[in-house]
Amino acid sequence: MSQNPSDSDDGPKGALTVRTLAMPADTNPAGDIFGGWVMSQMDIAGSIAAVERAEGRVATVAVEAMSFIAPVKVGDVLCVYCVIERVGKSSICVGIEAWARRNRFANRVKVTDGHFIYVALDDEGAPRAVVTEPGSVKPAST
Amino acid sequence: MSQNPSDSDDGPKGALTVRTLAMPADTNPAGDIFGGWVMSQMDIAGSIAAVERAEGRVATVAVEAMSFIAPVKVGDVLCVYCVIERVGKSSICVGIEAWARRNRFANRVKVTDGHFIYVALDDEGAPRAVVTEPGSVKPAST
Amino acid sequence: MSQNPSDSDDGPKGALTVRTLAMPADTNPAGDIFGGWVMSQMDIAGSIAAVERAEGRVATVAVEAMSFIAPVKVGDVLCVYCVIERVGKSSICVGIEAWARRNRFANRVKVTDGHFIYVALDDEGAPRAVVTEPGSVKPAST
Amino acid sequence: MSQNPSDSDDGPKGALTVRTLAMPADTNPAGDIFGGWVMSQMDIAGSIAAVERAEGRVATVAVEAMSFIAPVKVGDVLCVYCVIERVGKSSICVGIEAWARRNRFANRVKVTDGHFIYVALDDEGAPRAVVTEPGSVKPAST
Amino acid sequence: MSQNPSDSDDGPKGALTVRTLAMPADTNPAGDIFGGWVMSQMDIAGSIAAVERAEGRVATVAVEAMSFIAPVKVGDVLCVYCVIERVGKSSICVGIEAWARRNRFANRVKVTDGHFIYVALDDEGAPRAVVTEPGSVKPAST
Amino acid sequence: MSQNPSDSDDGPKGALTVRTLAMPADTNPAGDIFGGWVMSQMDIAGSIAAVERAEGRVATVAVEAMSFIAPVKVGDVLCVYCVIERVGKSSICVGIEAWARRNRFANRVKVTDGHFIYVALDDEGAPRAVVTEPGSVKPAST
Repeated sequence: MSQNPSDSDDGPKGALTVRTLAMPADTNPAGDIFGGWVMSQMDIAGSIAAVERAEGRVATVAVEAMSFIAPVKVGDVLCVYCVIERVGKSSICVGIEAWARRNRFANRVKVTDGHFIYVALDDEGAPRAVVTEPGSVKPAST
Repeated sequence: MSQNPSDSDDGPKGALTVRTLAMPADTNPAGDIFGGWVMSQMDIAGSIAAVERAEGRVATVAVEAMSFIAPVKVGDVLCVYCVIERVGKSSICVGIEAWARRNRFANRVKVTDGHFIYVALDDEGAPRAVVTEPGSVKPAST
Repeated sequence: MSQNPSDSDDGPKGALTVRTLAMPADTNPAGDIFGGWVMSQMDIAGSIAAVERAEGRVATVAVEAMSFIAPVKVGDVLCVYCVIERVGKSSICVGIEAWARRNRFANRVKVTDGHFIYVALDDEGAPRAVVTEPGSVKPAST
Repeated sequence: MSQNPSDSDDGPKGALTVRTLAMPADTNPAGDIFGGWVMSQMDIAGSIAAVERAEGRVATVAVEAMSFIAPVKVGDVLCVYCVIERVGKSSICVGIEAWARRNRFANRVKVTDGHFIYVALDDEGAPRAVVTEPGSVKPAST
Repeated sequence: MSQNPSDSDDGPKGALTVRTLAMPADTNPAGDIFGGWVMSQMDIAGSIAAVERAEGRVATVAVEAMSFIAPVKVGDVLCVYCVIERVGKSSICVGIEAWARRNRFANRVKVTDGHFIYVALDDEGAPRAVVTEPGSVKPAST
Repeated sequence: MSQNPSDSDDGPKGALTVRTLAMPADTNPAGDIFGGWVMSQMDIAGSIAAVERAEGRVATVAVEAMSFIAPVKVGDVLCVYCVIERVGKSSICVGIEAWARRNRFANRVKVTDGHFIYVALDDEGAPRAVVTEPGSVKPAST
């Protein structure tokens, strides 16, 4: 049993990568937080995680699947957690969960999860190989 | 042979639902248009299409799959096309394609496609049945 | 009698050039959509139309006249239609109408119309002649 | 000869009503400040002036004419000046000029002028009469 | 007794440097105008004043003290006044007050005051000396 | 010696409260991230910390002191850390540090620190006592 809530069965999985406050300017016409804003925060978090893993620039290439589980409300603290799930030759799949702290201080609830695919880019913007083990010097493409 | 470019094999599929200009304020740190902004425009377009089909309020519940095919650039005219692909008891699957007109006037290129799922909501925000054939009076839940 | 509302006497005149959703972030202190946001969408639409006509870069030089006919509400789908009304040596007058689909799916109403003047620019930003007939090779300056 | 620069032939005419800094987020794809942002600042200024004159809520109903004289650049201080030009039964015409201080501290240049029409509204949003002389108790509709 | 309210004991001190309208997009989750937006307007005003005094580019280096005296409401006209309080070798202390005109036309109330420190920068972004008396040719560093 | 960088002498002090990406839309005319945006993120973080400590709504009442140590650049990951420094009858002083991860993945640098004061509010918006020990039932005002 882990003391780290992000490893427990019920809590968020992964590293806290983005944490921000949902503001009135982010609402949709129904008064909830706009889903596009939530997807944007997930994409920002996923790209931060992928940049760290790739040790360089990345681009978003796909969303494999994504669920909206509960609405985000104005005043919620949105916390986005990321896990590196798979690393291909030049691609990185990041598992992304967003959790909301309701009323800023109550218990948190999971609001979305998804799997975003990023590709590592070289300086010219072309795909490049990702090192298989971060910190090692061995290139991935062998 | 169709005169309607949206029915051709090479052009966009579906009804033009959102058309807007990509502005400098929408860029990511690499200087391209931020993927979250593009996803936001797709979600707005899909929800407009789902609202018309549901003849009432909807919420986004999932993205089945989505691909980023080419970057969107500052000054591109982003055109988002929608097709109603499936209608369930209370859910609507919308196929969404985004196309960019480069430099505002050159030929267009497909930049993303995806499949977004919406659910029809009643006045209290609970899921409600979608009429099977728009315009008919027969409820979907039989 | 036409079944196509955009060809009827009462419907919008011109080509659909911008189509977007009015969001809470676009409201004024009275709770309606801010007039400056509506003018911005009209200017974006007019400049897209003028760029296509000029086959190059343009700048807005004047608004001849513009009327606000009805307020735009949060959740309205704003549709902006453009017609090229006059082409001078280097200037292009675009007639612009904005229509709102209320509640996203009800009948549309005309909310604004106006006439915006654009001037074609060369690469250095100086006014340049507009080709009199698009697609022809004859320069406008004869 | 007036000591008040806003009455001179060369300087801005009217009362300084909006003063703000043009930021990178306000640019158009060409890198200049977006004309829609400038029109928005003019409409804000005109509505502040009309509210003070009407001693109550107003709505923008028309732009009689408006010219873009010079581009606004990132970093310019935009100063918008307003004059009440005409007062009708329920309408107010405001002359509006925008001036830019280049590089924040150099000499100012006139970038736009225009004439915006506002209508005074009562609590229900219906047009109401404007008092003919501000500060007097005599209603306009006699 | 002065007729100029900015010279009276009770009114704002300093030169009007920023004047803008508080919009719904600037609210916090409680419905008042977000404090960060008000601080942003104060920093913009202070930097405009410091740029004029330094006759060149500046950067914000510190906030000595700042008080939020009253909330800013949607629809308030925010007026920011600046006084140059001290000039060091390369630093400039600006006293900044923000006042709100409630309901756009009622009496104004002081909403914040503070003291912001700016440093003059040369073309490479390094601190540079500020001329002791604006308009004089004597450099500050003697 | 601690392995947790937030406990070390050189690393950030306090709990990670806001983590977000600095985008091009947040720049000032000099091309760096606008100081008002950084202050806004600090105020958001401080208010989240104060809300958790007060177990209810708060308002920002003062900035005691704040330093800008290094510029924030586009593409930096901004991390804001908060410590509750003092709790008065109804006020809470939060120590706030912002750190930037340069280029998204390189070593972090401290960019600002400051001390923000919040006051706990009751449902009517009036100041209320803060519980002295969070989690206890004893009110602060004895």
